[in-house]
Amino acid sequence: MTGRLIGVGVGPGDPELLTLKALDALKHADVVAYFAKEGNVSNARTIVAKHLNGAEELPLLYPVTTEIPKAHAGYRDAIRDFYDVSAAAVASHLDDGRTVAVLSEGDPLFYGSYMHLHVRLSHRYPTDVIAGVTGMSGCWSSIGTPMTQGDDVFTVLPGTLPEVELERRLADANAAVVMKIGRHLPKIRRACERAGCLDRAIYVERGTMTNAAVMKLTDKLDMVAPYFAIVLVPGWEERA
Amino acid sequence: MTGRLIGVGVGPGDPELLTLKALDALKHADVVAYFAKEGNVSNARTIVAKHLNGAEELPLLYPVTTEIPKAHAGYRDAIRDFYDVSAAAVASHLDDGRTVAVLSEGDPLFYGSYMHLHVRLSHRYPTDVIAGVTGMSGCWSSIGTPMTQGDDVFTVLPGTLPEVELERRLADANAAVVMKIGRHLPKIRRACERAGCLDRAIYVERGTMTNAAVMKLTDKLDMVAPYFAIVLVPGWEERA
Repeated sequence: MTGRLIGVGVGPGDPELLTLKALDALKHADVVAYFAKEGNVSNARTIVAKHLNGAEELPLLYPVTTEIPKAHAGYRDAIRDFYDVSAAAVASHLDDGRTVAVLSEGDPLFYGSYMHLHVRLSHRYPTDVIAGVTGMSGCWSSIGTPMTQGDDVFTVLPGTLPEVELERRLADANAAVVMKIGRHLPKIRRACERAGCLDRAIYVERGTMTNAAVMKLTDKLDMVAPYFAIVLVPGWEERA
Repeated sequence: MTGRLIGVGVGPGDPELLTLKALDALKHADVVAYFAKEGNVSNARTIVAKHLNGAEELPLLYPVTTEIPKAHAGYRDAIRDFYDVSAAAVASHLDDGRTVAVLSEGDPLFYGSYMHLHVRLSHRYPTDVIAGVTGMSGCWSSIGTPMTQGDDVFTVLPGTLPEVELERRLADANAAVVMKIGRHLPKIRRACERAGCLDRAIYVERGTMTNAAVMKLTDKLDMVAPYFAIVLVPGWEERA
């Protein structure tokens, strides 16, 4: 009998946004695995810290790749090798009959790194995925901003897109979220302005954390943003 | 002192996908309100049923509007009046100092009817919104289908859109969810085919419920679908 692989969505940051199902998975797991950068604490582990009671921990530490440009084949190869090795480490516990819970910030199958293990292992081991509250839901809920209603078209855009494409897609949606902000902020602001949605765009840093920063994008003057900040463009313009 | 308004996301259907925060809100609420159709049970109430312990219940029953076409001004007026009356009913409890938890399937500010109360009341009363797991996250997690990764563009589309617009938007996104299926299913299927995503489209009925139905959209031959079915078009085509 092999063990069970469980992708556990731990939500956007507030430990109270854990689901009962996630909690139960943590309670019964033999091994709790999570991705982290070498020398950093894992956000996902921090979220569940007070519910960890004695399970073996398996940190999966990203290789240091800051010297290799992301578009470079070497970067892709290094990351792919890392996921292969990580999957093998998880598989070895599964082969020994242990249940492995893999923590995933937000929702595991929505932009989550858990998926790299899922595609390598779920055809070989019994697997469950526990949905979680996404980071974006955490953000718009914490500031009480209605996002979408009725027949709204909603789009999630990476801030890495070219400016004209961001502009086109923002103009084409009723509501949008732009992720991966960082150094792309000035470009995203210009795209919002040209798409006609700058006035209602909201900049959010550290969403549901206690030290969250929230402001209208027009008030974000310093143009310095972390990679994990997001911009919300609320829809539902009639509001009635 | 007025009471507190709390929009409570109760998740996609599986009672185990309730968050700790939602549970706590239910435990401390004086009144639990929920929308339902006359003569029907509220799905949201069913999800939390075993956690209701003695709070007063306030069902908000939609008027019977099946005789009025949706595009008709009379329909909009009837619905708007209903939300006004519902907000007044909630406000009267808040005025008496009672905390009112309004149940919302999925995530309250993401296509949720709670928002109609939120825009009428949140500027007058202290208000919290508790994010929930969305119906779509529940669906793709229950079937273990990776949806989006890296720089994917993700779109949510109402099935009510014209066929050419559905086709254009499906072709323009890496991953998509089509909601509000019902009688629009044949049109949605044609749009998927023309957009080149029919082969990977998945039809899901009653997402995380015990009686869920899941199949490839190409295998959904009867073309009879409930309004709340959804179609998933997974992204992350490289899967590595």
